[in-house]
Amino acid sequence: MALLSVAEALARVTQGLAPLEAERVALDQAKGRVLAEDLAARLTQPPFDASAMDGYAVRAADVAALPATLRLIGASLAGAGFRGRVGHGEAVRIFTGAPVPDGADTIVIQENADEVSGAVSVKDAAAGRHIRPRGQDFKEGEILLRTGTRLGPRELMLAASMNHAELPVRRKPKVAILATGDEVVPPGSELAADQIVSSVPYGLAALIERHGGEAMSLGIAKDDKESLVTLARAGSAADILLTIGGASVGERDLVASALRTEGLELDFWKIAMRPGKPLLYGRLGSQRVLGLPGNPVSAFVASLVFLVPMLERMLGLVQAARAEPHGLLGEALPANGEREHYMGAVSEWREDGTRIVRPLPSQDSSLVAGLTCADCLIVRLPHAPALPAGARVGILPLDRG
Amino acid sequence: MALLSVAEALARVTQGLAPLEAERVALDQAKGRVLAEDLAARLTQPPFDASAMDGYAVRAADVAALPATLRLIGASLAGAGFRGRVGHGEAVRIFTGAPVPDGADTIVIQENADEVSGAVSVKDAAAGRHIRPRGQDFKEGEILLRTGTRLGPRELMLAASMNHAELPVRRKPKVAILATGDEVVPPGSELAADQIVSSVPYGLAALIERHGGEAMSLGIAKDDKESLVTLARAGSAADILLTIGGASVGERDLVASALRTEGLELDFWKIAMRPGKPLLYGRLGSQRVLGLPGNPVSAFVASLVFLVPMLERMLGLVQAARAEPHGLLGEALPANGEREHYMGAVSEWREDGTRIVRPLPSQDSSLVAGLTCADCLIVRLPHAPALPAGARVGILPLDRG
Repeated sequence: MALLSVAEALARVTQGLAPLEAERVALDQAKGRVLAEDLAARLTQPPFDASAMDGYAVRAADVAALPATLRLIGASLAGAGFRGRVGHGEAVRIFTGAPVPDGADTIVIQENADEVSGAVSVKDAAAGRHIRPRGQDFKEGEILLRTGTRLGPRELMLAASMNHAELPVRRKPKVAILATGDEVVPPGSELAADQIVSSVPYGLAALIERHGGEAMSLGIAKDDKESLVTLARAGSAADILLTIGGASVGERDLVASALRTEGLELDFWKIAMRPGKPLLYGRLGSQRVLGLPGNPVSAFVASLVFLVPMLERMLGLVQAARAEPHGLLGEALPANGEREHYMGAVSEWREDGTRIVRPLPSQDSSLVAGLTCADCLIVRLPHAPALPAGARVGILPLDRG
Repeated sequence: MALLSVAEALARVTQGLAPLEAERVALDQAKGRVLAEDLAARLTQPPFDASAMDGYAVRAADVAALPATLRLIGASLAGAGFRGRVGHGEAVRIFTGAPVPDGADTIVIQENADEVSGAVSVKDAAAGRHIRPRGQDFKEGEILLRTGTRLGPRELMLAASMNHAELPVRRKPKVAILATGDEVVPPGSELAADQIVSSVPYGLAALIERHGGEAMSLGIAKDDKESLVTLARAGSAADILLTIGGASVGERDLVASALRTEGLELDFWKIAMRPGKPLLYGRLGSQRVLGLPGNPVSAFVASLVFLVPMLERMLGLVQAARAEPHGLLGEALPANGEREHYMGAVSEWREDGTRIVRPLPSQDSSLVAGLTCADCLIVRLPHAPALPAGARVGILPLDRG
């Protein structure tokens, strides 16, 4: 079977994926969720002309010639505005955020005035009006947050300002994770000879949650169809079934043939990629199935390249366009073979902000300690020519912690 | 009172802050937590010489001259290694990840061999040995994750590989958030005239959680001492009490004087910063108190500059050194005044990766919609001179969503 290109494989795994249904969540539960509708302001902000300073609300004409002495007729506080009108020769004490009373059109800041027994002496020229006009921030009905926006601290603060107590967000994509392998045991086990520790599910669960999905662990299936099918069925409600192949005989065949009895329509299983060549992909009814290699590095890189875009499609995430991240090679690289190569690399930043990237000494896909040292992956296309030190290369930055 | 510099204020708020106590959490609960001890591997990985390919385990001397025919004497599977020894002229079927049997020192990959009724014909030279030596990834006792590391997907995958089922992490710093102001109402309210919606607590709770803290909301205090003290006491177990000043009369005095009756030792309250000048800081027993301005933008920027470093100290977070982020001005900037200025700005990336930054048209600290458009803050030191377009400026990047 010819190897499939990464681009073609990505097109196939994301084909037909539409944003999931919307649900409403309380504002304090919406962190990291993705907005499912455009969000319009439910009020005008500020809702009234508001003072930007502590001082006195006056008529500009009254302080055109200085010094001037005005009669104090009241106070406007935040939450308790002055209900009357500021007339000629009058002033109202006012505080930051409080409504500017009718008749006044300027705030004299308090450092420029003295107040003595009901009289306000304005001694200095007021620079500017110091009024935040009604609606300066936004107006009722104005759309300030668009569908597809991921809700972080600032977006949530804005949504609250817009007077929303709950928000329409996309349901989280559910991803069921199924490890496989007779030799695989959970972390913390006393290991018998030949056994290895299950590690990939813990990394992928965190990756899935970081990208807005919900991970559920189905445990570790034995290398037989019955065990695999039984555990896979426990995850049938998930949007995506992620299998992590054991390294045992027939690793790929076992997952494919076991799930085929469940109705799996296999799409592909070999891609021109390094690490991560044996990637199984297919559909089981409405569920998408991604069969990852058992090597931790292969599984992680394949998840970054294929699973994360699937999640983003299901969330309807709209991302800001920006330049493709890149680095300059810290050392020469040989020509690449037929597989798109994702090389773990460590960066060093020059004073001018340039990112110098050096591949890790070993690119063996079984080395999980090495992957943790990397801060990006250098992406090399199939048959990319040899490159000298200093050449520009595309990278995939890896988030820290 | 003279204004305090941002650097001096930062030194004071972080002074004496040590990492919080450690607690143990299960691996699948450790996402985003910070490691409280150096973590040593509890096993050697791989635990045995393992095959890197599917094929046949042989003695290199037997395949030095090709073609060669070897006698198949068994199979080594992951989880079920071959217990015997590979002698002269013998071969063992082997799969990726399985133990290399005694006697064998080379793997012939399966594409280079034919197996017919117990005989293995090796037709092509094996390039390389295709063996991952025991301990190639790491050795038992080796420290692979250091105290102060934030645990992301890759770190958790590595910790699992090291055979840890639970991890020692720092307790999350608890931050109690107390909004104040007679005029402040929760989002979703029907607003009376002069009322404004509480928004800052929702943004800060998300910011605190993103940076590894635990946020608790104490609600909205009225502008009187009793209300403020009552609610503040409900947060007495928090490591940090965060108050958000209403814009009413005596905003700053009220918080300070109410908490002084509780034993607040006030440190400072005015810093040379824009936005965010009125920042209250003090200690209430072992609790740190940070009194933020009521304006959303001021409160958010002050939290980025002061609260986040406090959290990082309490978590004992160790961060990788890298170049200070910077951008090139997309337009000229006037000279700065006496206050360190954090200007909301929007970036545009040039093809070569250069980040061009342009300040938002309005830097009014009440404009929360504007803040959400920004992707970084341009940082201008007090009395910084005017700068032409193209000049390099320090920035504080803002995380999206």
